[in-house]
Amino acid sequence: MEQICNRISMLRAEMKKQGISACIIPGTDPHASEYLADCWKEREWITGFDGSAGTVVITHTSAALWTDSRYFLQAEKQLEGTDIQLMKQGLLETIEIMPWLKTQLKAGERVGVNAQMFSVDSYASMKTELQMAKIELISIDLLLQVWTIRPEMPSQPFYVFETKYTGKTTLEKLALLRLEMKKEYADTVVISALDDIAWLFNIRGNDVNYNPVVIAYALVESTTATIFVAEEKLTEETKSYFRNEGVTVREYLEIYSVLSQLQSSTTVLVDGAKLNQALFQAIPIGCSIRKAMSPIYKLKSIKNNVEMAGVRCAMQKDAVAMTRFYMWLEANLASGDLSEMSISKILRAFRSEQENFVGESFGTIAGYASHGAIVHYQAVEPTEFKLTTENILLIDSGGHFLDGTTDITRTIALGTPTKQQKIDNTLVLKGHISLGTAKFPSGTRGSQLDILARKALWDLGLNYGHGTGHGVGHLLCVHEGPQSIRMDENPTVLQAGMIISNEPGMYRTNEYGIRIENLLHIIPAERTEFGQFLKFETLTLFPIDQQLIVWDMLSDFEIDWLNNYHQKVYKTISPLLNEVENEWLKLKCTAYNRA
Amino acid sequence: MEQICNRISMLRAEMKKQGISACIIPGTDPHASEYLADCWKEREWITGFDGSAGTVVITHTSAALWTDSRYFLQAEKQLEGTDIQLMKQGLLETIEIMPWLKTQLKAGERVGVNAQMFSVDSYASMKTELQMAKIELISIDLLLQVWTIRPEMPSQPFYVFETKYTGKTTLEKLALLRLEMKKEYADTVVISALDDIAWLFNIRGNDVNYNPVVIAYALVESTTATIFVAEEKLTEETKSYFRNEGVTVREYLEIYSVLSQLQSSTTVLVDGAKLNQALFQAIPIGCSIRKAMSPIYKLKSIKNNVEMAGVRCAMQKDAVAMTRFYMWLEANLASGDLSEMSISKILRAFRSEQENFVGESFGTIAGYASHGAIVHYQAVEPTEFKLTTENILLIDSGGHFLDGTTDITRTIALGTPTKQQKIDNTLVLKGHISLGTAKFPSGTRGSQLDILARKALWDLGLNYGHGTGHGVGHLLCVHEGPQSIRMDENPTVLQAGMIISNEPGMYRTNEYGIRIENLLHIIPAERTEFGQFLKFETLTLFPIDQQLIVWDMLSDFEIDWLNNYHQKVYKTISPLLNEVENEWLKLKCTAYNRA
Repeated sequence: MEQICNRISMLRAEMKKQGISACIIPGTDPHASEYLADCWKEREWITGFDGSAGTVVITHTSAALWTDSRYFLQAEKQLEGTDIQLMKQGLLETIEIMPWLKTQLKAGERVGVNAQMFSVDSYASMKTELQMAKIELISIDLLLQVWTIRPEMPSQPFYVFETKYTGKTTLEKLALLRLEMKKEYADTVVISALDDIAWLFNIRGNDVNYNPVVIAYALVESTTATIFVAEEKLTEETKSYFRNEGVTVREYLEIYSVLSQLQSSTTVLVDGAKLNQALFQAIPIGCSIRKAMSPIYKLKSIKNNVEMAGVRCAMQKDAVAMTRFYMWLEANLASGDLSEMSISKILRAFRSEQENFVGESFGTIAGYASHGAIVHYQAVEPTEFKLTTENILLIDSGGHFLDGTTDITRTIALGTPTKQQKIDNTLVLKGHISLGTAKFPSGTRGSQLDILARKALWDLGLNYGHGTGHGVGHLLCVHEGPQSIRMDENPTVLQAGMIISNEPGMYRTNEYGIRIENLLHIIPAERTEFGQFLKFETLTLFPIDQQLIVWDMLSDFEIDWLNNYHQKVYKTISPLLNEVENEWLKLKCTAYNRA
Repeated sequence: MEQICNRISMLRAEMKKQGISACIIPGTDPHASEYLADCWKEREWITGFDGSAGTVVITHTSAALWTDSRYFLQAEKQLEGTDIQLMKQGLLETIEIMPWLKTQLKAGERVGVNAQMFSVDSYASMKTELQMAKIELISIDLLLQVWTIRPEMPSQPFYVFETKYTGKTTLEKLALLRLEMKKEYADTVVISALDDIAWLFNIRGNDVNYNPVVIAYALVESTTATIFVAEEKLTEETKSYFRNEGVTVREYLEIYSVLSQLQSSTTVLVDGAKLNQALFQAIPIGCSIRKAMSPIYKLKSIKNNVEMAGVRCAMQKDAVAMTRFYMWLEANLASGDLSEMSISKILRAFRSEQENFVGESFGTIAGYASHGAIVHYQAVEPTEFKLTTENILLIDSGGHFLDGTTDITRTIALGTPTKQQKIDNTLVLKGHISLGTAKFPSGTRGSQLDILARKALWDLGLNYGHGTGHGVGHLLCVHEGPQSIRMDENPTVLQAGMIISNEPGMYRTNEYGIRIENLLHIIPAERTEFGQFLKFETLTLFPIDQQLIVWDMLSDFEIDWLNNYHQKVYKTISPLLNEVENEWLKLKCTAYNRA
């Protein structure tokens, strides 16, 4: 903690020198990424908090970190011993960053931010908000002189992701993109999101943990396409690939000079939520700016048939690995040696035995007992739990295969569950089934469906503090937009071809956590005089723990759903298993029969 | 129809003269009202379509009218014989106004609109959209020279609405408003919505049908408050009232000159969704503009205890009138003389017998058989239906009392209903119950709850093309914001104290329509570790037709709800009825007992 305090002192000295009263450091990078290369983990470096979401604000006399409910417990622990105050986002009583800043500063003072780390939209809204209190927002990289010994930028080579997996060539994708650009009257689009770039150019890499992306920018015009990427990351294979696809390659940071030389008659399509403010400022004043969501963001979210065939294959491999893992867990639990971290390693090992395994799609969340209540829990050496038969175990994990990406959560009882655990799990299951069996008209947004997953909980005054569903990439980010199912509004309409998770949960602080997660595929249902309807196909294929169910709380419809789901799991997965594994799965998939 | 064609020709001649290629005429007024004074019914005058929502666009060679699903059937009929094309808003295949205009015009052409008839936001977004195609938006009142013989502006006097009904004086309301202005750093607020003005100054009038508002503008500063209203509308009573409350009175149109003289250091709070562009343009360039939802809009939506006591009293009076009306209807149906229009008159008469009756809160929608499928149906002489025992009857009606405003829809079988009618009605009832019994955390928006009212329909590929719930004023507009429950997103959070309707429906074109509407009051439920929860109290007290129910489709929970509701209706209303009426109500409120 002393280290953190020293770092903050150094930053404050630099702030004083530059005449800056407050500094805002978000947990992102110039590409608006969720997972960051080490060289960009600025918020983590200055606070010690390593959650995937959170922003710290430091003034000369105070410091506060805002993060959401997934990280309340983790942040509390990691901030212990510092003077950084935890601000719990999403609670009505929590003051937001801008209002808080106004209570800390007076008119005439200046707030400094690194413009690379803020989107155009967030920069503009901060500026406007602060202006009201006559506080100035300054674009300045204060950490440049403070965090001097940084990790290097990743320099590993990346690879071409074959069309047999992607289903579409870069040329085909460029044609689709240009069609969208035309609709928006744009001549040029700047692309800064790493997964958009990986999708468009059919490349994958290892620059950050869990997201197989390549650090790069791109610029697409009506006849040209340029990727900006470090020379050292290129191989003969990728060089010739780009040549063949007609893609120009330039150095990573040359994007700035290329942007600054755009003709003033150019109309540039800018995704204000994603493009960083520094890049935006590089666009000449004379250019027309057309603000719209990145067309790639939308195109990428609709999976094609080749991608979907791959994903279905990945789901089967995942289920085989999960079967072997949980069998192993049951067999070895009595040893008393199993811990959250050790089982995560074993789970990874079972997944890696499967063909075309690329890596984990995120750090496994294995939360036993009260650790399960920490939504994005990552076990660490000194505090991890040993597994015993006293409580329940939540495991949220996923894999990347060349065929596609998986993400699954199951909660199982390691011994005899309590009545409350069974009730909570059954409420979560009711929500999971209600959402998974929804039918809805074309044009529906995720926020309209979210209540289906929560209603059983809300009816009893319960809730969970995270979203219900996120998109999933195809050998790309396990959290992929633009679709989502959450309480918050998201204007994106759910469309056939999208993949989205279904993961309601229930968390009792200091007791346990429950979550049930399957991935869903949006598919057409009937077309009636009231329009086209859509529904979900469940992609994930692994049994749900029946020991944690209060059967009387389920309707006949819900029991039928569960029995049918288990029958489908068994039918699909059993041919891939040996006899012993088969017996195990059969038992877990036994149909329940209401007496 | 010849008249409409002539008017359009005159407009086109004027457009030619002014060098305008297209003209957009919306169905609103300078106050963004839903119900208009006759002098402002421009869209109706030029098209013949008199629905409450719709915009016509006229070019030199084409004309098209956009309206929503409530008015598809009505607009089709009213546009017959003109060359105005009907554009069905909300259908995926329907092109929107701006994209359509771009297909009709070329770069360099000019579109003219009367800036008084467009909000600041809609004007700005049209301008931006058209600019992309290099089409210019011009502020010009083309109808000024075309619609020359207009109805006069309303000149009737208005009255002071007593504190014993409003619960708060104007001084108290001004204090609340100034608190909100301070939060937004605003010195001045321009108020243009007629119901905001009526609420703030505790006045009511008769300037438009059904909405007891007064045509006026207002300007509130930190120490002064000014109402801009026609001199001829003032009485000695209102003059002295304003004097006592410290409110300055000026002529209606003087708002323009007063605005134009604001000090350039002033920060003006502007509701971009409501203030008209012409008024906005009058604000001097030097002023700071603070865009935010009108604070009155929010303050007004939370009813105080005096208002709520009044509303509960109004609900009882409404139920008595409804009881007498439906008894009368049953007794006189056999005569064969009843028609949609005649029963609407009778219903009004029964309501007007009740104490403190002010008027109808909207034109009664009495739709028999296929007319019920026209969502905002208004019966007219040549096409209205006589009532027989062959079909079902939908009546949506409401009253203004000094105590408050009501709005209720019931659908009843006049003979033996068909199986499909009963199924449809039961699905609607299931939705009505599901929404009405919802419990939800503080911070929930209406769009999150909307699916509860639709799920039973969606499950069968059915839907209804209107919102599920709207706010209701207190002796003010029957459609009052900012809250709503709809498929569309509305960022307004549902708060304790708000009133909102619960009115799912089901419409079979050319067959029949079904709607069940009660008003709900949002009240606190329990507070748990997961936050404060809210729920609904049903305000409307009148039985739901049990002949139209398929009991096997209802769960025990739903049957219990209906039985409890009917018990409450009977208990509350029967003491206000005579013996015969009492017997009738008792029968309608009989509890159902699942055999």
